[in-house]
Amino acid sequence: MPLPEEVKKRLIAARRKRLLTAGEYVSGIEKGDRFILSRAITLVESTKEEHRALAREIISKCLSLSGNAFRVGITGVPGVGKSTFIESLGKHVIAGGSKLAVLTIDPTSNVTGGSILGDKTRMEELSADERAFIRPSPAGDSLGGVARKTREVMILCEAAGFDTIFVETVGVGQSETAVHSMTDFFLLLLLPGGGDELQGIKRGIVEMADAIAVNKADAQPAAAKEAKRAYRNAVHLFPAKESGWPVRTFLCSALQREGLDKIWQELRRYRSQSKENGYFELKRRTQALYWFEETIQERLGHAFRKHPAVANKMPELADAVVAGQITPFEAADDLLKLFL
Amino acid sequence: MPLPEEVKKRLIAARRKRLLTAGEYVSGIEKGDRFILSRAITLVESTKEEHRALAREIISKCLSLSGNAFRVGITGVPGVGKSTFIESLGKHVIAGGSKLAVLTIDPTSNVTGGSILGDKTRMEELSADERAFIRPSPAGDSLGGVARKTREVMILCEAAGFDTIFVETVGVGQSETAVHSMTDFFLLLLLPGGGDELQGIKRGIVEMADAIAVNKADAQPAAAKEAKRAYRNAVHLFPAKESGWPVRTFLCSALQREGLDKIWQELRRYRSQSKENGYFELKRRTQALYWFEETIQERLGHAFRKHPAVANKMPELADAVVAGQITPFEAADDLLKLFL
Repeated sequence: MPLPEEVKKRLIAARRKRLLTAGEYVSGIEKGDRFILSRAITLVESTKEEHRALAREIISKCLSLSGNAFRVGITGVPGVGKSTFIESLGKHVIAGGSKLAVLTIDPTSNVTGGSILGDKTRMEELSADERAFIRPSPAGDSLGGVARKTREVMILCEAAGFDTIFVETVGVGQSETAVHSMTDFFLLLLLPGGGDELQGIKRGIVEMADAIAVNKADAQPAAAKEAKRAYRNAVHLFPAKESGWPVRTFLCSALQREGLDKIWQELRRYRSQSKENGYFELKRRTQALYWFEETIQERLGHAFRKHPAVANKMPELADAVVAGQITPFEAADDLLKLFL
Repeated sequence: MPLPEEVKKRLIAARRKRLLTAGEYVSGIEKGDRFILSRAITLVESTKEEHRALAREIISKCLSLSGNAFRVGITGVPGVGKSTFIESLGKHVIAGGSKLAVLTIDPTSNVTGGSILGDKTRMEELSADERAFIRPSPAGDSLGGVARKTREVMILCEAAGFDTIFVETVGVGQSETAVHSMTDFFLLLLLPGGGDELQGIKRGIVEMADAIAVNKADAQPAAAKEAKRAYRNAVHLFPAKESGWPVRTFLCSALQREGLDKIWQELRRYRSQSKENGYFELKRRTQALYWFEETIQERLGHAFRKHPAVANKMPELADAVVAGQITPFEAADDLLKLFL
């Protein structure tokens, strides 16, 4: 006999108050308990040291349960229809039997006071589906911090049995490099047209893409076809990817749910092919080392800048560098002497 | 009455032996004495601490005399004809009344034991001309080191009155980012054809270019025109440059000395336009801060990796990261605790 709603609510409220042990978190996550998963993610995002310590323990225990999902980065300028695309593709993916987690990276969210991506209600159908889990961008004081948290949330989601992870990013800042460095496949969404919509995209992002999808092809079919043709030719001109994977260009309409099956097929084809030739695993390992290096660099730099003597001298030297009164190398040496 | 050759030779030999003072170096450089300039550059390249100290003093005194040259980065895959191009364009430039210094960055040179770029004899006519100064790549134990030395050599050349600096790089490694970050204009040389020659070029380099020149247009006119058309279209599709400068594509034949005047006009047009709208100065300042930051990061990282406890623990942790036994963030924290 199921518990009465009244009792359930009280139990949940009690559980909410008590801080679970790391073991309880992990066993809940492993069972796919979304409530416990959410609470664990909140710990990852917390700035309190006791929460961070608990989060580290949970992540450490979840590590061996993680790594099995297919991680897909999705980017595009505002207005390209990312939310609709993710909702449509997401529904397609879960209809195929997958469990999908959607994470977002949006380092602007704590600057503007509200995330431009992290609006859970935008993906209404997907967020109502129990096979999907949507989590907005964690706030952070640096891109590195946001990236770390997103990677840790990814580990928790994978341990909870999500086999497909979408990481959404806004495509105008530096977060794409971070997302590119934590996903297996990087999908770029573009609008129909002759390239003007790229004015808002950072240079270098197009070359990161493993596939390009021109969205809103229903509204502007001719312009979409023209864009597809142009990007196909352009991509062909650019240097081959390290993976050897040929970047293809697709048309779709997320709103009409057209063309998404072909895109998902392409992603699956990439996954099986790169797993077969070993590139999938190689990329994962390279990414892990990349974050190892990046984290060391970021924290070394942070400790350096926070050092009182360095912090005191830095502005003066930076001004002298900009004014051309001292070489950047000489100035760096002067500062390092204060620290090392 | 001029000194007899015999006496001159003895004086020069004596001067060669004696280490000049920083003031003597600077006054020689300021007078455009190529012999003294060369010796100062040798000091910059030296690994001996006494030489480095003297070099620092010279550079420091030369700083106020530098910064007035137009700095042009030139890159392209091996076989594209960079040397011939630089010789031809260089002769065009000095015929217009300029004084030209050609520097090369080739971080592979101390790996292979010989520079693939730094062969002074390749540019025979230019190296015989007193209005030009050609200096092969300084060796270095890191790209950062090579970049620093090249930037310092640039300062000395500018103080010696060279108003145009070409920095040549091979286009297949990471040195392009370095060259891009120390020059005002970045020129990419390509071969005729449909993009296959880009297979050897690193991704991201095409987007760095401020102009593209398809060389060897005399040998394959149809393929060159086709390449020009294709790149023009492709470049148009890619995001606008921060400078707002529209990237144009040119045809040339360095061997036949055709099309070089148009390319040089384009470069001069960029210089005057970007000086007018302030981007020229802004970029210079941004570059100085970039090298300040880069140098700090590089040397912090170096000190970190050389730290005995870190060096001892690093391989084990890196292995654990790659094996997925520990998150990159956790491993980085563990290492940092040994250092900070």
